[in-house]
Amino acid sequence: MLEGHPWFQLEVLAASGKSAGNKYRDAANWILEEEMPEEVGNKQVEQIDSKIFENAGIKLIFSALPADVARSVEPELASSGLFVFSNASAFRMAEDVPLLIADINGDHLALVEQQQKSRPGYIVTNPNCSVIGLASGLKPLADNFGLKSVFVTTYQALSGAGYPGVPSMDIMGNIVPYIHDEEEKVEEECDKILGKFTGEAIEPLQLNVIASCARVGVRNGHLESVLVELETDATIDDIKNAFTEYKGNKDEALPTAPEQLIIVTEDESRPQPVFDSYNGSPERARGMAVTVGRLKLRGSKLRFFLLVHNTIRGASGCSIMNAELAKIRGYI
Amino acid sequence: MLEGHPWFQLEVLAASGKSAGNKYRDAANWILEEEMPEEVGNKQVEQIDSKIFENAGIKLIFSALPADVARSVEPELASSGLFVFSNASAFRMAEDVPLLIADINGDHLALVEQQQKSRPGYIVTNPNCSVIGLASGLKPLADNFGLKSVFVTTYQALSGAGYPGVPSMDIMGNIVPYIHDEEEKVEEECDKILGKFTGEAIEPLQLNVIASCARVGVRNGHLESVLVELETDATIDDIKNAFTEYKGNKDEALPTAPEQLIIVTEDESRPQPVFDSYNGSPERARGMAVTVGRLKLRGSKLRFFLLVHNTIRGASGCSIMNAELAKIRGYI
Amino acid sequence: MLEGHPWFQLEVLAASGKSAGNKYRDAANWILEEEMPEEVGNKQVEQIDSKIFENAGIKLIFSALPADVARSVEPELASSGLFVFSNASAFRMAEDVPLLIADINGDHLALVEQQQKSRPGYIVTNPNCSVIGLASGLKPLADNFGLKSVFVTTYQALSGAGYPGVPSMDIMGNIVPYIHDEEEKVEEECDKILGKFTGEAIEPLQLNVIASCARVGVRNGHLESVLVELETDATIDDIKNAFTEYKGNKDEALPTAPEQLIIVTEDESRPQPVFDSYNGSPERARGMAVTVGRLKLRGSKLRFFLLVHNTIRGASGCSIMNAELAKIRGYI
Amino acid sequence: MLEGHPWFQLEVLAASGKSAGNKYRDAANWILEEEMPEEVGNKQVEQIDSKIFENAGIKLIFSALPADVARSVEPELASSGLFVFSNASAFRMAEDVPLLIADINGDHLALVEQQQKSRPGYIVTNPNCSVIGLASGLKPLADNFGLKSVFVTTYQALSGAGYPGVPSMDIMGNIVPYIHDEEEKVEEECDKILGKFTGEAIEPLQLNVIASCARVGVRNGHLESVLVELETDATIDDIKNAFTEYKGNKDEALPTAPEQLIIVTEDESRPQPVFDSYNGSPERARGMAVTVGRLKLRGSKLRFFLLVHNTIRGASGCSIMNAELAKIRGYI
Repeated sequence: MLEGHPWFQLEVLAASGKSAGNKYRDAANWILEEEMPEEVGNKQVEQIDSKIFENAGIKLIFSALPADVARSVEPELASSGLFVFSNASAFRMAEDVPLLIADINGDHLALVEQQQKSRPGYIVTNPNCSVIGLASGLKPLADNFGLKSVFVTTYQALSGAGYPGVPSMDIMGNIVPYIHDEEEKVEEECDKILGKFTGEAIEPLQLNVIASCARVGVRNGHLESVLVELETDATIDDIKNAFTEYKGNKDEALPTAPEQLIIVTEDESRPQPVFDSYNGSPERARGMAVTVGRLKLRGSKLRFFLLVHNTIRGASGCSIMNAELAKIRGYI
Repeated sequence: MLEGHPWFQLEVLAASGKSAGNKYRDAANWILEEEMPEEVGNKQVEQIDSKIFENAGIKLIFSALPADVARSVEPELASSGLFVFSNASAFRMAEDVPLLIADINGDHLALVEQQQKSRPGYIVTNPNCSVIGLASGLKPLADNFGLKSVFVTTYQALSGAGYPGVPSMDIMGNIVPYIHDEEEKVEEECDKILGKFTGEAIEPLQLNVIASCARVGVRNGHLESVLVELETDATIDDIKNAFTEYKGNKDEALPTAPEQLIIVTEDESRPQPVFDSYNGSPERARGMAVTVGRLKLRGSKLRFFLLVHNTIRGASGCSIMNAELAKIRGYI
Repeated sequence: MLEGHPWFQLEVLAASGKSAGNKYRDAANWILEEEMPEEVGNKQVEQIDSKIFENAGIKLIFSALPADVARSVEPELASSGLFVFSNASAFRMAEDVPLLIADINGDHLALVEQQQKSRPGYIVTNPNCSVIGLASGLKPLADNFGLKSVFVTTYQALSGAGYPGVPSMDIMGNIVPYIHDEEEKVEEECDKILGKFTGEAIEPLQLNVIASCARVGVRNGHLESVLVELETDATIDDIKNAFTEYKGNKDEALPTAPEQLIIVTEDESRPQPVFDSYNGSPERARGMAVTVGRLKLRGSKLRFFLLVHNTIRGASGCSIMNAELAKIRGYI
Repeated sequence: MLEGHPWFQLEVLAASGKSAGNKYRDAANWILEEEMPEEVGNKQVEQIDSKIFENAGIKLIFSALPADVARSVEPELASSGLFVFSNASAFRMAEDVPLLIADINGDHLALVEQQQKSRPGYIVTNPNCSVIGLASGLKPLADNFGLKSVFVTTYQALSGAGYPGVPSMDIMGNIVPYIHDEEEKVEEECDKILGKFTGEAIEPLQLNVIASCARVGVRNGHLESVLVELETDATIDDIKNAFTEYKGNKDEALPTAPEQLIIVTEDESRPQPVFDSYNGSPERARGMAVTVGRLKLRGSKLRFFLLVHNTIRGASGCSIMNAELAKIRGYI
């Protein structure tokens, strides 16, 4: 996703363990339909170490380290003055670390100043892939109508488990109603993301999220069935308007942010992973938009389906957009 | 499922329209893994007409007619004195027609007496396949703890759509979050099934069911993510006990009824359609049991996953079991 | 595929039967991941009739009619002076109709002059989707080494069957080793395509093709396992060179023709439908290239796998490229 | 498969490495639809060692060790006097080791006498899962008409790769035309199996097998597209008769051997993995029969599709049947 980025340029690839020392082409198992950019494939993967980045004159790091490696490496990098934008779960719930989606809770970014009281750099995390979709859909509802409770059931794509990920014998023609630690993440991360930033800390919202997470035989695109209880009265049209008029941080032009964050589909059989995750249209913003559909209102209870591209908005795209916000606000 | 049945024997096959006149072997598109019983395949399919059944000395009819055909044909059959056990949706919500699952609301069967005030025969319907699973799981909860609300999200198997059913281009590697009329059925049928029989009519329960129904690329077995709000306090153990100790109509020995209706699995990744629908074990009762798992309790809210074999307990098995109940109670 | 085409522009959409009279948006079941171009969706579908094209001042028709409709309609259109480029199978084997793949047997195009002795317009057909891939792979081998026999086994994608096409219950987790009439087409069409044009007629080659055709649960991309017996000695390198140096009609710049027709992959696990049909790289020529891999030579017998995007090079792209050739050679 | 076996009884489970010391229930990843027999699940898995078997008074071992472990362990067991029936590939091509399918080349069993000149026990191997199906289909053809060449293209099921086996991201909606070492095994093993036993050694047949092996998204059942060149003239009826009248070692009643080894289906769309591997009918012999269909004869070339249940006839069932033959012939 960094190829052709107007602000950022890939300089150094680093890894822990056995990938280091190889060309990226040989170290990575590339399972995207698009081919690996030639230049990236030829880059050497370095042993991860703050010196490497210093020597290359680099300040901005995107981390996709495993959680346990991130736990020790990311603080070291931040202590060396690096700005770490991480997809790892290790520090998501840390008090002084923003759990950031630039166009949802961009004001939380200032929390890095708390970190910088004790170290020159900082860590910014992006949420779990399911949560990025869910929180994006919940934000306009919370802002406009208030939320008393949330129940979400997911249909999560295979790519969310990485590679090799889910064995085919487990999932072929089957559904696995369990993803390790996933429901816990969904339940706690939403409260922090939609929480209020006091200037020094985040006061979590009490959304009372209950999550049911299942893996399905889909390549890309997490589908979610969401039921929320609204605090104030609303009509279906009010809700559609709240979704489509949600603006994010639109006054700041972030290159990766979608023009239209939430797309409301009127097709009664959509959103569907194959047709609405990415390629569907330019309006899908190359995977950075979220599609909602099948809105149904019963009193104060609202049901809808939501689709998020789990590896784009749900991971890499979110981190890049977060770094763009940091850049435009002077934190990089 | 009637092959080798101790009480019932297949005598006549009848259909409307173009199937009539052919051998069943040629009229049916057989997509079960088990081969068609030789004798059944060789049977002639007759044009449906109450005379045919009269001539054959038959009283008991299993109807799997399309809803629109059922709407006109089933009352004719009942008026001729026949006992029609139907999987069609046409009369499920009719006031004097039982919406019956023998081991859940067997007492509703007596409602046929209301029909018999005006015609010699009657119609008994079984619920929608998703609902049969859901209502089976809700019954012990309603009995023991009371239910304030129900939210269910489904992962429904392909066989639920019949044949040819869902085009492969729609569902391969995809999820379709829409099944025509399905959510409406789930929402209204539960109230009637779990309603109270006054002796003359059913007083529906007010379960406030909200349903999200989706089709997935699974052959057999509807998986459901269920969230209920209980009326009284309960522990996880209370709930497991309520599930496993639920007895149905056990004092009456119905040949098709499962020994253990609700199986609680302790495996954190189950129930799964491939492993828990049917073949899993003798305890799965050849598709007549329902498996629940992943119970999670948050205050008065209970979350669990539930799996039902949609074409066995969810359709043919339910109808047969209903007829067995009618037989043992003297209605046949 | 015509959107943005440098030479051709979509003017009129026509259909037989019940599609006529609707907007294309409503008449078509759009199952591509890309969204329907706005302007195309709003076009009215006309009742097919040569007058409509005359009135619009149109000469070039792309036909994707069902074979039985094509059999009566296409000759009428040709008799009215229209140039019909057809994907239908109706006239593929007609003596005076080119069975054309512009970059494989472009010289056959002149066969339309035989048709024009008796009518002002003409019909040009493109081969079956499997055959377009196969013939593309066989052509360099026939040219360089001669071919004594061909045995091909296919893994054919769902999109080849149109919509609704294959029922999901037939193919989910399954293989169907039968496609109606497909093996016959593969066996006879190759001989004509690779045949010699005498100036007045095609002398078919005797390739002795034997085909085994099966449907698999893949969205797009026909994979083929090919075994050929070569007439002359060759090394693996000779064969790779023959593939990669095959030039097609490269002196004529056809906008839709791939820069490199046949790509030889050295990856021992490729070509694969998901990764090599289309998106893989610009070199895949947006679905117009053919990928071969896993070459194995045993004496004069050569085995390889071949992949063709069945709806692009295998259908619409081939027709468009054929019309481009007709245009550049003055037949339009 | 040993549960309820009339001759053999499971006494000891042994493994190398980390499985040892655990209950089988915890050591095994059980992915069959049938539940694990209670008693087997509770058995302790022992560290593999010939002493364990001696102490338990056991002579017959079924080995499903990985090839590299088998290479060192199986000869030790044979040297201790044990009779090892192995599914591992390590010794399949060893000169004095039978590559045995009891009802295809039962006479090869006597080759164990060559082994017993130098050690008290012996090793008997069964072929690769694809080969067991292929050789079963080729045997009646070789016997009746002679075979000049064989070309086989496979559609191999996921269960053939064991667990975790093929990552879902590799195979979902895709075909992988490569299985490590598989084509080599198919090409060399057939010659040995169908070879002639001289009393002291096997003279391999020269079948000139060329194999194209691919993995498909199917749970169980290897489908194969086979093209053979026959040495003598035959009609389709001759060939069907050769298939259906093939008797195997029928004079010896082996409990696991199928009543009818080769079933010829007349359904033009069969055999299919879902419907013909196992459950299809009692005649499918619980996975021990092989189904062939779609016979097509062109001169001396015969094409057909063949289906074998890869984990039953293709693995465990073959080993058990081999041991049954050894028992009935006095080698155990």
